[in-house]
Amino acid sequence: MNRKMIGKVLGFILLLECVFLFPSALIAIADGQMNVLRAFIGAMAAALVAGLALSAACRNAEKHFYAREGFLIVGLGWIVLSVVGALPFYLSGEIPRFVDALFEVVSGFTTTGASILAAVEDMSRGLLFWRSFTHWLGGMGILVFVLAVVPVGEGGYSLYVLRAESPGPTVDKLVPKMRQSAMILYGIYIALTVINVLFLLAGGMDLFESLCTAFGTAGTGGFGIKNDSMAGYSPYIQMVCTVFMALFGVNFSLYFLLLLGRVRDVLKSDELRLYLGIMLGSMAAIALNIRSMFPSLRQAFHHAAFAVSSIMTTTGFATEDFDLWPQLSRTILVILMVVGASAGSTGGGIKCARVIILFRTLSARLRQMLHPRSVNLVRMEGKTVSDETIQGVYTYMTAYCAIALVSILILSLDNYSLETSLTAVMACLNNIGPGLDLVGPSQNYAHFSDLSKVVLMFNMLLGRLEIFPLLIMLSPRTWKRAG
Amino acid sequence: MNRKMIGKVLGFILLLECVFLFPSALIAIADGQMNVLRAFIGAMAAALVAGLALSAACRNAEKHFYAREGFLIVGLGWIVLSVVGALPFYLSGEIPRFVDALFEVVSGFTTTGASILAAVEDMSRGLLFWRSFTHWLGGMGILVFVLAVVPVGEGGYSLYVLRAESPGPTVDKLVPKMRQSAMILYGIYIALTVINVLFLLAGGMDLFESLCTAFGTAGTGGFGIKNDSMAGYSPYIQMVCTVFMALFGVNFSLYFLLLLGRVRDVLKSDELRLYLGIMLGSMAAIALNIRSMFPSLRQAFHHAAFAVSSIMTTTGFATEDFDLWPQLSRTILVILMVVGASAGSTGGGIKCARVIILFRTLSARLRQMLHPRSVNLVRMEGKTVSDETIQGVYTYMTAYCAIALVSILILSLDNYSLETSLTAVMACLNNIGPGLDLVGPSQNYAHFSDLSKVVLMFNMLLGRLEIFPLLIMLSPRTWKRAG
Repeated sequence: MNRKMIGKVLGFILLLECVFLFPSALIAIADGQMNVLRAFIGAMAAALVAGLALSAACRNAEKHFYAREGFLIVGLGWIVLSVVGALPFYLSGEIPRFVDALFEVVSGFTTTGASILAAVEDMSRGLLFWRSFTHWLGGMGILVFVLAVVPVGEGGYSLYVLRAESPGPTVDKLVPKMRQSAMILYGIYIALTVINVLFLLAGGMDLFESLCTAFGTAGTGGFGIKNDSMAGYSPYIQMVCTVFMALFGVNFSLYFLLLLGRVRDVLKSDELRLYLGIMLGSMAAIALNIRSMFPSLRQAFHHAAFAVSSIMTTTGFATEDFDLWPQLSRTILVILMVVGASAGSTGGGIKCARVIILFRTLSARLRQMLHPRSVNLVRMEGKTVSDETIQGVYTYMTAYCAIALVSILILSLDNYSLETSLTAVMACLNNIGPGLDLVGPSQNYAHFSDLSKVVLMFNMLLGRLEIFPLLIMLSPRTWKRAG
Repeated sequence: MNRKMIGKVLGFILLLECVFLFPSALIAIADGQMNVLRAFIGAMAAALVAGLALSAACRNAEKHFYAREGFLIVGLGWIVLSVVGALPFYLSGEIPRFVDALFEVVSGFTTTGASILAAVEDMSRGLLFWRSFTHWLGGMGILVFVLAVVPVGEGGYSLYVLRAESPGPTVDKLVPKMRQSAMILYGIYIALTVINVLFLLAGGMDLFESLCTAFGTAGTGGFGIKNDSMAGYSPYIQMVCTVFMALFGVNFSLYFLLLLGRVRDVLKSDELRLYLGIMLGSMAAIALNIRSMFPSLRQAFHHAAFAVSSIMTTTGFATEDFDLWPQLSRTILVILMVVGASAGSTGGGIKCARVIILFRTLSARLRQMLHPRSVNLVRMEGKTVSDETIQGVYTYMTAYCAIALVSILILSLDNYSLETSLTAVMACLNNIGPGLDLVGPSQNYAHFSDLSKVVLMFNMLLGRLEIFPLLIMLSPRTWKRAG
């Protein structure tokens, strides 16, 4: 194993985090909150020292780089990032227990949005900004960012790290060079975020609120800066959020195709059609189901659309406490949690692309059963899906179900309702945030035991990194000397 | 499609059912319940007339027989069997609504044991006997029985029908001829049932009770003849049930190996080890978890063992209302519902063999990810598992999850808790019987809407026939002229 290469990239990630912490520290200065500023300086100093030490120790790393290194960099990178990212909350005393601070920041980086805070408005603005900014950083992927800004070289790094950090069954290469692909993706991400901020400013939000809200939307994270999430904002602001959450759940390579003027290819996308189909169908079904709770069908649809866009893209903002809605609506939302957004977007869940592959494979197998000698290929986006991809999807689903079951079992030690344990795990594993019952939109995660919180943190990381980097990191086989 | 062959076998199944109804009619005579007797005669007459008509119309059926015919015979056969089997309950007026009578008998034949009756003791003994007897008939498979007693010929029938009706990822051939295999399996089944009856008689049960209880145990069905299921019986009787439920959840081919004296092969069975491992582990965990609810650890273990054996083998008998147990125990039971018993047993669920294949495939894929050029085969019971079997397991799991989700969604229209809808679907799809909350062991299924009852009936049939016969029967493609 090329330990030095792993150390070198981890060192670089730490130095990068030191830079990322800077804007939040500036806000603390502007607000004159010396206590919070000291916490940021402490975190930045820790990141700087550790980053420089690692970089120095691993200066002369060899170039070879295989799957194992890729998985380990991604797994360890996100954990290191989270541990340092938790320091400002902990050192400032605004989240007194480290496990809670870590929970909050893992939830941030993984764009989950599950919080242990009962009242976010009590938190200082510098920390609120950092909390929302972690969503934005985690949304597009931090190691993708490394690839975009640093010449780590093509080959091993881009091949294995991108595969491990990118959401979805396959990695889209927009252009032949991976590094340029990463730069294009980040360009689109920044542009869409800026447009989102402009729309929010137009609705009367101030810059701080707009930035925080846009970060939560772009990363499909869901941390808000108000105790009632998005309920207190104007219908215009809520509608802007509904639309932009949905936009950030689309495969970003489709935006690249749009930029190239290939509109027809975009409209023919299987995944886009399924994504929009499920989304609009669910909005309609829920609007009718909750019709009687609102003065008009238009208002029912407004809130149904917000909830569906928020849950399906795995964002987690809320305008209404959907835990109080009828059972059909709640069940649809739980299913949307699992389905999730599109591959290659910032959203979580198992992704529409995997749903398509699963169902088309099932349909092909049924044809095969009836006509054993026929040949039945699975096609998606105009291409034949390779056996390797299909098997990858199945492996992912097996691991997904196993992790969900074990997690629910451990959470049940807290003796909360099955609905609470089940939806808490679903909300964390799919990077959504709120679930139902005791983790519903008007509740938080503070009441869980530390063991459950650790399990839920792992769920968030497993969900964001699509399981395998962490699973491989935790396997004893990975750490053996040989091979 | 060879419609005549399908008609011929269906006709034969109806004639067979006429014979199966006879013992229950005798009990009605012995009890002097003319009303019930008339209902049985009505059902027998219907079976006889329809059976003879079909047999006459399809006398000169051609021999050719492919996968499609196999799936259709199994799918239609079980539906025809259930419709006629529901007549005694309906005609006697003891279950006034036909949809309820059908629910009860589908639940019987599929060995589910979910009931719409609030008080079984109000039912006459003839009907109670028929209700329990359907478990015994459904347990080993009715088309397997046809194969064992009628010379339908080797080839197509045994190949496709057995594959469609037998539980598990593969079909075990005990001896080269399928027909002899079927006869051996039924022989073991009858012998074990007789031994079970003897043990129950020794505990002071009368013959009627012993037979009904043994039918429910052997088929892993769970219909009892007491309002409190098995709670009122002596600890000895309860222990006999615990042991025999577990025995009927073992792959029957292992008993055949035992008869051949190949004890070592039995002990080395991967599936038996996993089955017993999960069972004993769950018993211990639940016993500790419910310890404080009972006077001694021994008593806690007694009831934990009964519940685990009942749920994991998908029987559904109860000595205690496990819906009142702590959340860990309830969650373990829900997971056991899904895991189920062994392939080639009378139990339901996804089966331990599939769990082994899923996890070993996952483990092989993880190795492959780390060492892309290595070859990683999946092995079970000392043999390499073929790619076809692995893909069959994955296809099954995809269909299983999709059916579960759609069913839960439809049930949620009744606006019961998610726990009720979820565990009702799990209890029916895995052929268990009781779930949690409103379908817990002290409850019943009468309160669901007719739509939900129909969905749950389909779940029971899908679970018992392992999904594909019904799915293929319902696919429009199957009914096309060509092919």
